[in-house]
Amino acid sequence: MSGRVAQVRETALNRGIGALTGSLAGLGEVAREVRPRLEQVDGIIHAHLGATSPCIQEAAAYVFEAGGKRLRPAVLVATAQALGYRGDADIRFAAAVEMIHSATLVHDDVIDHATVRRGRKTPNARWGNQFTVLLGDWLFTRAMEIALDDGNILSLKVLSAATQRMTEGEIMALGLQRRLDVSLEQYLEVSRLKTAELFAAASSIPATFEPAFAACFEPLQAYGRHLGLCFQIIDDLLDVTASEERLGKPVFSDLREGRLTLPFILALPHLATHERETVEAVLLGGEIDSDAPRRLRHALEHRGALEQARHLARSHARQATEAIANLPDGGAARALRAAPLALVDRDF
Amino acid sequence: MSGRVAQVRETALNRGIGALTGSLAGLGEVAREVRPRLEQVDGIIHAHLGATSPCIQEAAAYVFEAGGKRLRPAVLVATAQALGYRGDADIRFAAAVEMIHSATLVHDDVIDHATVRRGRKTPNARWGNQFTVLLGDWLFTRAMEIALDDGNILSLKVLSAATQRMTEGEIMALGLQRRLDVSLEQYLEVSRLKTAELFAAASSIPATFEPAFAACFEPLQAYGRHLGLCFQIIDDLLDVTASEERLGKPVFSDLREGRLTLPFILALPHLATHERETVEAVLLGGEIDSDAPRRLRHALEHRGALEQARHLARSHARQATEAIANLPDGGAARALRAAPLALVDRDF
Repeated sequence: MSGRVAQVRETALNRGIGALTGSLAGLGEVAREVRPRLEQVDGIIHAHLGATSPCIQEAAAYVFEAGGKRLRPAVLVATAQALGYRGDADIRFAAAVEMIHSATLVHDDVIDHATVRRGRKTPNARWGNQFTVLLGDWLFTRAMEIALDDGNILSLKVLSAATQRMTEGEIMALGLQRRLDVSLEQYLEVSRLKTAELFAAASSIPATFEPAFAACFEPLQAYGRHLGLCFQIIDDLLDVTASEERLGKPVFSDLREGRLTLPFILALPHLATHERETVEAVLLGGEIDSDAPRRLRHALEHRGALEQARHLARSHARQATEAIANLPDGGAARALRAAPLALVDRDF
Repeated sequence: MSGRVAQVRETALNRGIGALTGSLAGLGEVAREVRPRLEQVDGIIHAHLGATSPCIQEAAAYVFEAGGKRLRPAVLVATAQALGYRGDADIRFAAAVEMIHSATLVHDDVIDHATVRRGRKTPNARWGNQFTVLLGDWLFTRAMEIALDDGNILSLKVLSAATQRMTEGEIMALGLQRRLDVSLEQYLEVSRLKTAELFAAASSIPATFEPAFAACFEPLQAYGRHLGLCFQIIDDLLDVTASEERLGKPVFSDLREGRLTLPFILALPHLATHERETVEAVLLGGEIDSDAPRRLRHALEHRGALEQARHLARSHARQATEAIANLPDGGAARALRAAPLALVDRDF
């Protein structure tokens, strides 16, 4: 791995763990436990990427070198720790969850015709749609192979059901593409399926590792669902408020790709006709003047849509924390309880 | 289901069982056992298609209504019968294998920009690439759900590994697209990965159902691999020799989609320059005169490439039959032994 790639991964890892608990400094004992396990997760992913043909290796390594935030693996590993789990299944399932997440991003970029993600060319921009569809398929099936290594049917069922829901969410989202009339209910349903179900799988899978953990399954699943919704809402906010440099992709990317984000859904009934027309123009992929993003941001701010969205994110963050109020106390449980509100304040 | 669709399925089912044994008349006791089980396989598939959103239901039903030959399910069910298996896992895994096969076809058509398959518009031609990529993902994950219902890790591993190999074969095939310099070795490797591995999964999965069947696993896997290669070679021959009506897609479809089929690989070193140029023109998607298919067919015939390909198919058919020489004798085992040579003579 080149120095730059190692540095990107290092930063991504710190950010992921940071996002999980507010800051690395506050992690204490959890960081000492979670960090080396996340490195083992990366080790499993890279070992599996190495065992295939050179062209798949190159492309799959490209996908992982960009370094996601490893948020889902961090949640899974921290949950396993909070439950007092002592085996290694958490590492394998964390790797499988991250690979499924990556497979979805890869297919998403094909579907959205996206050219930039995490500050780099998307695989479809680099290798074309045909190869990238197959690359996504390969990542999906390899994720299943990793999960199967463990031999736990119950864990596999949770993972597989979440993957199925994600696909259903993507299909529902596609049906709402380039539409101005997306309701809050539709938005929440798509976000639950597309985003929250995989977070819920990450948080609840460790509860399937031992029969003694079974009572924690539903609370942990609720935790992951609310955490995932919170994450998606903040993602929508960042698409409006963050800088291109922080996002690693152009501002208003979601809107430009035809996806009406939460702030717009909330503001739309209150916008002036010319403002709605600008939103529609961006949504339909039309050309807009360079000042339009600033004006739209101001319009959302002025109608209180950003604050309303942040309020909704905070509400889900609180519900996530409350869902695991009865988890046995300890460093990992405290970190998991602190994570949702820390996510609300993330800026990447 | 409409009358026409029911009729298409009926024909497909007869053809599939027919292909497995040469003719329905020769099936006897096997037909009586296999046929109702294949109807149960279709029942499971349709039940699973029903449990999702209307737009997925519609598209997935469209994919299955076209009615494949159900050859892989027939192999799986017949193998289970030959082993004396008495449970229901064969029905579930046969449904999963057929769904994975369909998912691959769906993604293949996106990749090949194919517009017609089995005499009808492809899903991508009907609903666009974006939705069709997700439809394939959905079919893949739903297949895994069906297989997971069974709870047998060993069977799942065989299925998952085959799916992975298929994807690797697709990627290798993509790398060879529109190339004239494909070697016989490359052709056989792609065919093994893309086609034969799923046949091998279908034939060997029943051997994972009970520990007593374990000794039959490798012979049955070898059977499926040779059967799959035989199937692929005949598929390549039919692309050259069959009528559009029989194929349900235009003649030379494979070649037009940039895939050098076996007869051309065998004939190419012996073709005249103007003949090679015509092959290259078709391979690169260029316009050719309406008489070109007839002339190319004649050139292949003349160089003995069709007979050579048929000879190779027969050799794999024989190896398939020999691989299961020691399978306990009975109607199903006899049908499985007769199937490969019957496949060589199929005309659809």
